[in-house]
Amino acid sequence: MDLFRQDPQVLNVGLASFRDAIAQAGGAVTQIEWAPPANGDRAVGRALARLVNDPTVEAANRVAYKAYLAAQPVLVGIGVAIEAIATMRPRLILHSGPPIAWDRMCGPMRGAIVGALLLEGWAADIRQAQDLAASGAIAFEPCHHHGAVGPMAGVISPSMSVWIVRETVSGGLAFSNLNEGLGKVLRFGANSAEVIDRLRWMAGSLRQTLALALAETGPIDLKPLMAQALHMGDEIHNRNSAATALLLKRLAPAMLRSNASREDVAAAIDFIAGNDHFFLNLSMAACKAMLDAARGVAGSSMITAMARNGVDFGVQIAGAGDRWFTSPAPVVDGLYFPGYSIADAAPDLGDSAITETAGLGGFSMAAAPAIVNFVGGTPDDAIANTAAMGLITLGQNSAFTLPAMNFGSAPAGVDVRKVVDNGILPIINTGIAHREAGIGQIGAGITRAPLGCFTQALSALADSLPET
Amino acid sequence: MDLFRQDPQVLNVGLASFRDAIAQAGGAVTQIEWAPPANGDRAVGRALARLVNDPTVEAANRVAYKAYLAAQPVLVGIGVAIEAIATMRPRLILHSGPPIAWDRMCGPMRGAIVGALLLEGWAADIRQAQDLAASGAIAFEPCHHHGAVGPMAGVISPSMSVWIVRETVSGGLAFSNLNEGLGKVLRFGANSAEVIDRLRWMAGSLRQTLALALAETGPIDLKPLMAQALHMGDEIHNRNSAATALLLKRLAPAMLRSNASREDVAAAIDFIAGNDHFFLNLSMAACKAMLDAARGVAGSSMITAMARNGVDFGVQIAGAGDRWFTSPAPVVDGLYFPGYSIADAAPDLGDSAITETAGLGGFSMAAAPAIVNFVGGTPDDAIANTAAMGLITLGQNSAFTLPAMNFGSAPAGVDVRKVVDNGILPIINTGIAHREAGIGQIGAGITRAPLGCFTQALSALADSLPET
Repeated sequence: MDLFRQDPQVLNVGLASFRDAIAQAGGAVTQIEWAPPANGDRAVGRALARLVNDPTVEAANRVAYKAYLAAQPVLVGIGVAIEAIATMRPRLILHSGPPIAWDRMCGPMRGAIVGALLLEGWAADIRQAQDLAASGAIAFEPCHHHGAVGPMAGVISPSMSVWIVRETVSGGLAFSNLNEGLGKVLRFGANSAEVIDRLRWMAGSLRQTLALALAETGPIDLKPLMAQALHMGDEIHNRNSAATALLLKRLAPAMLRSNASREDVAAAIDFIAGNDHFFLNLSMAACKAMLDAARGVAGSSMITAMARNGVDFGVQIAGAGDRWFTSPAPVVDGLYFPGYSIADAAPDLGDSAITETAGLGGFSMAAAPAIVNFVGGTPDDAIANTAAMGLITLGQNSAFTLPAMNFGSAPAGVDVRKVVDNGILPIINTGIAHREAGIGQIGAGITRAPLGCFTQALSALADSLPET
Repeated sequence: MDLFRQDPQVLNVGLASFRDAIAQAGGAVTQIEWAPPANGDRAVGRALARLVNDPTVEAANRVAYKAYLAAQPVLVGIGVAIEAIATMRPRLILHSGPPIAWDRMCGPMRGAIVGALLLEGWAADIRQAQDLAASGAIAFEPCHHHGAVGPMAGVISPSMSVWIVRETVSGGLAFSNLNEGLGKVLRFGANSAEVIDRLRWMAGSLRQTLALALAETGPIDLKPLMAQALHMGDEIHNRNSAATALLLKRLAPAMLRSNASREDVAAAIDFIAGNDHFFLNLSMAACKAMLDAARGVAGSSMITAMARNGVDFGVQIAGAGDRWFTSPAPVVDGLYFPGYSIADAAPDLGDSAITETAGLGGFSMAAAPAIVNFVGGTPDDAIANTAAMGLITLGQNSAFTLPAMNFGSAPAGVDVRKVVDNGILPIINTGIAHREAGIGQIGAGITRAPLGCFTQALSALADSLPET
């Protein structure tokens, strides 16, 4: 009876003119934003209907998600790419994102490849390097095809140093290059003498010093260190201050116990202490190791990689092996440094979205209110972002708890079905590169993975399953 | 007219039986907890009535609070107590809290003093040291009387190392001893050979290495470093992990640039990297420097020190110089380590409540949800605690922002009038010492400053002002 005594409360779905008429007449009306899945694409809708609650997919996702949850990434060493990565070859250069040929690459990736050719001594100057790269004599393949990841251009050439991370449950290995710091750096396409000199030092003195330190520390469990950093304001993608400091606390005493020379130790500690992003590449390798544990589970709709090459945004799912599903990479509508705008930006770039794929970065935004501040939001926005990601994931990773969510766990294991069904796209925290090589970072922001990757993956998964 | 259509909503103040009768009859009733200020003490109530909104007090508080806000504590060096502290004398030992004679001291403080006598070589064994301490030949004075602070027993003897902090606006100096780490340590009353050996090393090699490092870094601004740590999960009293890591990032490269020997550098870095509380004593010295800037403002009701000696809890206010207002120190009803209970605890101990006096520690609890977790609360409790402290402070310190409060500022400048008027007692985060010397820390928790200190200070302030 109470119901009839109250004023009507109207919910309107669809045409806004109905809402407007009620509002103009003084009524209370709430407009519900709703769109059919995949913007009404009927084929995708049918694929989705087949996969939602499908027992094969549900069972496969349990297997894949459990493997991701159980994964234990451990830093076991540092090596030279050509020696450490079993599938690395001479005249091969790895890059971020899905496969791409030289003539389609964005400016920063080309710049980084030119730098790598100079570093390797395969070319004497930039012109020679560009000609060599275009000649077809050099192979370009995604880092992801070699168990590796790299931020921004993500370039790894044979002589570069790589972190070696072992996932102790599966025994799998994951690799990443070392973080160069900010300013003029290869990953943003810079290739001047100062950049090449730094990479030479990183491939020599720094690698040797870190190797001696790791021989002293023994393997370093990365998951507890990352969990601690989440309690100290990092989301371990765009903010790595705490994680870097925690790593330095482990490495510095070990360097001093080792045989490394005082000069080498001083230079290594100076470099790490001066680069708050030093841990990023290790975070990425750890996430890669955790997600590779979930690969190759037939029928699973869980995302195992999101990666961008500055032209294409690519997604892989556990149920489709190494196959990429790509859409044009978005340009990031973030905060730009003074003097730059979105017109200067390269489209979204780098393998670092592997952190979001593993439940960190944008997915754990609630852990790092300072990041939201940086891109113009509030701590409440951060909490809302993390909560929203919980609507497209298979569960929560209790290894990664978030103080601002009352120590609730990070949402993890993106389910391609939920992305398409809810129309909620994964949030990615990212830096923004200038579209020309060598200018470097010009901003930072929050972006979304494009829907097309997910609808393609969904359709492919549906096609791979027998009709019921 | 709407009012008469609604069911009555009853607020009841006082006797609970009125509430119960309404509730039993099915009515909606809210019981308001209220007590007259100072539990109805009429003299205190009259003093409070005189001081609330008193223009002299208001003006004095503006001066004192502004001086606290403007203060810029800078780490300028490390020295030997007898040389660095101008008022230090041979045969003088400093301790935490308000003044106390040997025969009234608690177990941990006696143990720490015995250790200091052994360190100084004034006694050959524990028995001799106890006799000497009881003989009257050694002077005992509060750290606070010498511009210094020390956690727990807070013992500083002439040969010990002290941090030297300069407040650059007033030019004032503040000092603290160095943090020894956890386990068997002097500040909890331990005085075995291992404790004395560590103090010798801290007075020698560690001090020299830190002095050489500080010569390389130059003065280190402490306020920005503390502000950064508040964004990384520290409240900089019971949790100093981030602040310690940030300090190490500054000191380690400087040590390696200096002339310090590799062995000394390795030992210093090992020690700091292994002690997450290393920054605590610097935080305390910085807070002491900020609050000393507000001292000696006639008529001000702002608290300039809260400190405990394990027997008495003492408070000082800007309007009453170096006079202490004391009440019995409470025993902390916190979380005890396995095998210990409140029956084993020494009453509240140490100068570290200087951090709360400056708006940190319990006042900035919202910054450090992990601490609340440790003592059995939730992040929402932390936010509520910080919000409650805003009801007894003169303002907020915009140098210290708290991410979980949407980057609102730390409540700071405790007003003795507001404490007595609202009956809200300052929250203090604290460790708990065993009541016998040498057993060490047996728990941690949240406690409250006792009301008596504040009512005495209030009455004294009222007496110091001319009758209107």
